[in-house]
Amino acid sequence: MEEDSNLWFEEPYTKELRYQYRVKRYIARKRTKFQEAEIMDLFAFGRTLFLDGKLQSAEIDEHIYHEMLVHPAMLLHPEPKNVLIMGGGEGATLREALKHPVKRVYMVDIDEELVNMCEEYLPKWHKGSFNDERSIVLFKDARKFVEEYDGEPFDVVISDLPEPVEEGPAIYLFTKEFYSILSKKMSEDGIFVSQSGSAEYFYTEFIRALSATLKEVFPYVAGYYDYIFSFQLNWAFLIASKKYNPLERKEEMKKRFEGIKDRVKYITPEYFFAKTVLPKYMEESMNMGVPITDEKPYVWKA
Amino acid sequence: MEEDSNLWFEEPYTKELRYQYRVKRYIARKRTKFQEAEIMDLFAFGRTLFLDGKLQSAEIDEHIYHEMLVHPAMLLHPEPKNVLIMGGGEGATLREALKHPVKRVYMVDIDEELVNMCEEYLPKWHKGSFNDERSIVLFKDARKFVEEYDGEPFDVVISDLPEPVEEGPAIYLFTKEFYSILSKKMSEDGIFVSQSGSAEYFYTEFIRALSATLKEVFPYVAGYYDYIFSFQLNWAFLIASKKYNPLERKEEMKKRFEGIKDRVKYITPEYFFAKTVLPKYMEESMNMGVPITDEKPYVWKA
Amino acid sequence: MEEDSNLWFEEPYTKELRYQYRVKRYIARKRTKFQEAEIMDLFAFGRTLFLDGKLQSAEIDEHIYHEMLVHPAMLLHPEPKNVLIMGGGEGATLREALKHPVKRVYMVDIDEELVNMCEEYLPKWHKGSFNDERSIVLFKDARKFVEEYDGEPFDVVISDLPEPVEEGPAIYLFTKEFYSILSKKMSEDGIFVSQSGSAEYFYTEFIRALSATLKEVFPYVAGYYDYIFSFQLNWAFLIASKKYNPLERKEEMKKRFEGIKDRVKYITPEYFFAKTVLPKYMEESMNMGVPITDEKPYVWKA
Amino acid sequence: MEEDSNLWFEEPYTKELRYQYRVKRYIARKRTKFQEAEIMDLFAFGRTLFLDGKLQSAEIDEHIYHEMLVHPAMLLHPEPKNVLIMGGGEGATLREALKHPVKRVYMVDIDEELVNMCEEYLPKWHKGSFNDERSIVLFKDARKFVEEYDGEPFDVVISDLPEPVEEGPAIYLFTKEFYSILSKKMSEDGIFVSQSGSAEYFYTEFIRALSATLKEVFPYVAGYYDYIFSFQLNWAFLIASKKYNPLERKEEMKKRFEGIKDRVKYITPEYFFAKTVLPKYMEESMNMGVPITDEKPYVWKA
Repeated sequence: MEEDSNLWFEEPYTKELRYQYRVKRYIARKRTKFQEAEIMDLFAFGRTLFLDGKLQSAEIDEHIYHEMLVHPAMLLHPEPKNVLIMGGGEGATLREALKHPVKRVYMVDIDEELVNMCEEYLPKWHKGSFNDERSIVLFKDARKFVEEYDGEPFDVVISDLPEPVEEGPAIYLFTKEFYSILSKKMSEDGIFVSQSGSAEYFYTEFIRALSATLKEVFPYVAGYYDYIFSFQLNWAFLIASKKYNPLERKEEMKKRFEGIKDRVKYITPEYFFAKTVLPKYMEESMNMGVPITDEKPYVWKA
Repeated sequence: MEEDSNLWFEEPYTKELRYQYRVKRYIARKRTKFQEAEIMDLFAFGRTLFLDGKLQSAEIDEHIYHEMLVHPAMLLHPEPKNVLIMGGGEGATLREALKHPVKRVYMVDIDEELVNMCEEYLPKWHKGSFNDERSIVLFKDARKFVEEYDGEPFDVVISDLPEPVEEGPAIYLFTKEFYSILSKKMSEDGIFVSQSGSAEYFYTEFIRALSATLKEVFPYVAGYYDYIFSFQLNWAFLIASKKYNPLERKEEMKKRFEGIKDRVKYITPEYFFAKTVLPKYMEESMNMGVPITDEKPYVWKA
Repeated sequence: MEEDSNLWFEEPYTKELRYQYRVKRYIARKRTKFQEAEIMDLFAFGRTLFLDGKLQSAEIDEHIYHEMLVHPAMLLHPEPKNVLIMGGGEGATLREALKHPVKRVYMVDIDEELVNMCEEYLPKWHKGSFNDERSIVLFKDARKFVEEYDGEPFDVVISDLPEPVEEGPAIYLFTKEFYSILSKKMSEDGIFVSQSGSAEYFYTEFIRALSATLKEVFPYVAGYYDYIFSFQLNWAFLIASKKYNPLERKEEMKKRFEGIKDRVKYITPEYFFAKTVLPKYMEESMNMGVPITDEKPYVWKA
Repeated sequence: MEEDSNLWFEEPYTKELRYQYRVKRYIARKRTKFQEAEIMDLFAFGRTLFLDGKLQSAEIDEHIYHEMLVHPAMLLHPEPKNVLIMGGGEGATLREALKHPVKRVYMVDIDEELVNMCEEYLPKWHKGSFNDERSIVLFKDARKFVEEYDGEPFDVVISDLPEPVEEGPAIYLFTKEFYSILSKKMSEDGIFVSQSGSAEYFYTEFIRALSATLKEVFPYVAGYYDYIFSFQLNWAFLIASKKYNPLERKEEMKKRFEGIKDRVKYITPEYFFAKTVLPKYMEESMNMGVPITDEKPYVWKA
């Protein structure tokens, strides 16, 4: 019966390529102060979160995205104690960070209504992380939080923010000025990682601009990527460091990986390092961009 | 005007996930003796070939598929002179093989009507390769051709066949018996490569069976993969060798790559080797299968 | 925002013609003992009820369907006091019947869960009719109810049943045997009317069979039809009478119409009689069918 | 095989209701000087013509549209000899007109490329009418033709024009000024009929304006309508006359119908007169509009 459901969610990748997902159960919709959030069960992907009509996270492979986002940074640093996550409303980034022996993880997401909705409907994502005693969850603008922060320096900072759409809340969270401030709140050997959008060769604008920006602030910047099936795209990540060249820390990473290997499903150090060997177009795009500034923020176009 | 075309081609990935491509121009359709072939210009992917409703090859990224299929095998062998391509009707596999200083490339495809259609409508694929004096294009069953072949042994054999669908012509081209015969027609250091279907973690059946089968015949078998955007999938390739361990020939490959590097757009040896580091599920699946035999041929289910 | 909803409900008219409705709000779904019921707000039609994926009733034009179903029979009879509705779960057939000065209306619908759902989510349909003191709402098989009924004879019987799908509850509610029993429970001048499915010229099978069946039992049988926009179809109705020739009672109907004319939105006697002038194919089909019997019940095919 | 074609033509009725037709064969596309014309075979409707993406005419029921457009006017006039068709590029309006014993039919259509395309691909529409010796087919602006015309007065004028879209060629063919000129080129008992767009209750703007306009010029104006399945709409027609009240000529029409009854498939005088009994909303809309003038032409919005 349900298999014959005639309810479909349509995601136009562009005006000329559409994805249509058959909906098993439409669960919740909420227009928060910042975005339109919809949660539904898709036959193809399981439970799935859409923001403003774009697929954000699907049960079938959210672990790939979140493991690839979190663990490289956490393993490249020798001993991350104090961690900051910007965005990450579903709670899965937090979940992965807490797999490491950290002292404290700040998660700063501006959209309280979204986080509450995820807490209610996405238990497989957060798995109770919001209530872990090491978690401090704050609902505020991440820039403001960082500017005012005067606690212990961050060892690892994870940027799990949406693309900076026009007038969206993330628009000043990808600029040189912001990264300069952020860098000052990080420890000497702090590591920063950011989800960085599509890694397809017909859309590399954002990685170009973002890698150019990070290079203005951090001595070491490297890219990696992975294919996320439910995104139907190769996805880019940029990792930046004040002290370590990430690409030279394979042995260190392997050693530290032993400590968490029973808690992850997908990532291995070998696999991660293979994913730092970029397709030619992506490697080139890492050297072609113009830094993003507060004066000229990057505006992401669908 | 054309941008507003309301003609769509729909490809059901499964019953529960559909892709819809806006059609710029519908060019040709032919029901050949073996399949339904359709060629059209899509806004998203450029000129595109569909067989039995499944996307086979798109202008936007056919070079990724064909470079990844052909060059690793051609570069791992020290001096491929005599090459066999099974399938490959569009002529692009042939085009890539001819970039090497070969003496002769046999292309054996059972579907003459399809090859003629590709010759007429897919000039960017074959680029005249069918008429290269080193090419011998034959329209016959590849198994029959191999069984009867008594010419110089093949240095490289490239299997660019469709999945073995029920009652389709490829059904006995993936069996242990066939590979045993084929192996005897290959040189001592011959290398075999096969496109091997989806490399997604929810569909690894075919790689399992195929790698188990190849291991029955060839001492060395390795897998690699790449994401093909127009397939919306990670795609698997299996490479097998009588003499060389492909994964140990990085330096050799780098050296030989110098000879063709100006003629390729995408592949590099570094990138290829990174793509031999498989995701865990794929690595595992390479050790789990049961060999395919003439008695129990693999039947691919959509 | 909502206008950009990407949720669609798809109704395949046939495998080759699909309707897609953009969904404003998906309200409720329930698998009752008898059918899959879904209620949603469509941008095009307002609140809409689907049963087993087929559109049943839409806010935008349910009044056309229900006025055309109920009032002709009620106005052709000189003084309907005791009325029976079979089916009609939304409550709108009941609502229209109660606009007349009746003593009692029985509504017999087998699907209690559906009626409860309609009561909750379709207030514009029933408008409180379920609680009108003249209403007697029963949840049972209409055939059983009629067979056992021994109250005052019915002046008007309204069949607002779904098409008799295989193994569905309506399968024995369209047979000669049933109509014979029913006829005996009707007054001398009783009038029967039935929604009778599509009136399109490429699908007249059901009207053929049904009119042949009614003619076995009732001396007078006439057809009429109207276009229901949300059905995207001309819809047929058959009206049968023991004593009156419906087509000859125009003046009587006009007179009685005065009593309800302020309570209806759409129907007029002139308009109704114009709708009894059938397209040629429909007129012909009323004389071509074979009666439906308990032994050979009609099975409706989508 | 063909039944499984995955080629679809999509017609958005509005942004919120889409029709999708499975395409059996895509036959021809041409961007003429005036519009985008596409001809294809649909499984649901047979051969079908689309103009600017809107369905114009389908094999399955073009006879309903064309019989209802042409014969009422031709039968209401006692002896139409000299006939003018404006538009009607498919040739089916001409075909129907030639079923009467006329002396001459002018067909004036601005789009020569479209007419040529229809002549080649829509033989079931024109059935050779373009070459009937009574036909005079002219490719020019109908307004210009009428203004310059000084031949015998027209007994019947049939307006089979597209809706007056912005900057389209029909924009000045629906104005009071044009009808005044046209009226002078018609005989004393001349009859004019025009296809008049949707007759649905949520879209009556055009009938309102058009009937108000015709009433400025002609003493008698009446409306009728019919459901055209492939349009998925009730369709309106307006008929205007200098001398006769169309609604009072039923007996005359019946008599004259005898002469063509073997040559038509659908229409009968009884049926036609039933279709002049309008739904209330349509009747009301015939008395509510403001005349269209050259200064304020009607611009049709999708």
